[in-house]
Amino acid sequence: MGLFSYDIKTMDDLFVHTLRDIYYAENQILKALPTMIEKATSEQLRAGFETHLRETKGQVARLEQVFKLHGVSISGVNCPAIDGILAEADEITGEVEDKAVLDAALVAAAQAVEHYEITRYGTLVAWAKQLGRNDCAALLQQNLEEEKATDVKLTALAERSLNRRAA
Amino acid sequence: MGLFSYDIKTMDDLFVHTLRDIYYAENQILKALPTMIEKATSEQLRAGFETHLRETKGQVARLEQVFKLHGVSISGVNCPAIDGILAEADEITGEVEDKAVLDAALVAAAQAVEHYEITRYGTLVAWAKQLGRNDCAALLQQNLEEEKATDVKLTALAERSLNRRAA
Repeated sequence: MGLFSYDIKTMDDLFVHTLRDIYYAENQILKALPTMIEKATSEQLRAGFETHLRETKGQVARLEQVFKLHGVSISGVNCPAIDGILAEADEITGEVEDKAVLDAALVAAAQAVEHYEITRYGTLVAWAKQLGRNDCAALLQQNLEEEKATDVKLTALAERSLNRRAA
Repeated sequence: MGLFSYDIKTMDDLFVHTLRDIYYAENQILKALPTMIEKATSEQLRAGFETHLRETKGQVARLEQVFKLHGVSISGVNCPAIDGILAEADEITGEVEDKAVLDAALVAAAQAVEHYEITRYGTLVAWAKQLGRNDCAALLQQNLEEEKATDVKLTALAERSLNRRAA
């Protein structure tokens, strides 16, 4: 949620601001995923990231629907949180040469991203309901469920193979 | 995980690096919590943050035990992720005047922090086990459980009262 954002006075302002925060975040993730796909050495992990790239495009489209339903312009605000999470992902995975260790680092980075999205969508769903916007809540809930499912898949992938290969 | 970190070659390096990342993060959270306590207007929320401050001190102590058990020096590395999450918390809660909206924003900010900790502890527990460090995994698991419990408490608090007051 960025500098230069408008004053937040009401729950509705807070909701719209946080919507713009996650909209910016999803778009940054869209830009970061191709590099993560390129770095991944496990076929399963690469395939998982490719699926997530497709899902992320769908999530951005759902967010755009939420903006329209709520009658506000589609735009993002700076989000230092996702910038920091992605910068860290980039740094750590840039330092690793061993393939299995690199994949383990990539999974951890992807899960940090997922958890950021899970917390924001969880908050947004609750706020949408409180504001009586069940239509928006339903769309945001779909994004939340997809993020949670991705996190579970990443955990399973890590526990099954990557860590074992790397250790 | 910061700039100037050493080269990461093995799973053990990655584990220690991530341990230093969360150690830095917990210490930044220790510094940020007093301001969040000061800003909170709901008594329940303030009490919740105070409990979390005490817990965080215990978590830092457990991390120091993990460093010792694993035979590495106690130190942090820069963590742009937590810096971004806390910067965002500070910005957003600095912009809100209405008390109930401010409390809702504070809960959301605290949950973003919790989710960062949950993802890192989840990863660290898995890696500690893979490395055969069940002693470290047990301590890290305690931190993970506390963070998850705090997140659940914050959700309940938000849903019960804050959002309703604010909307």
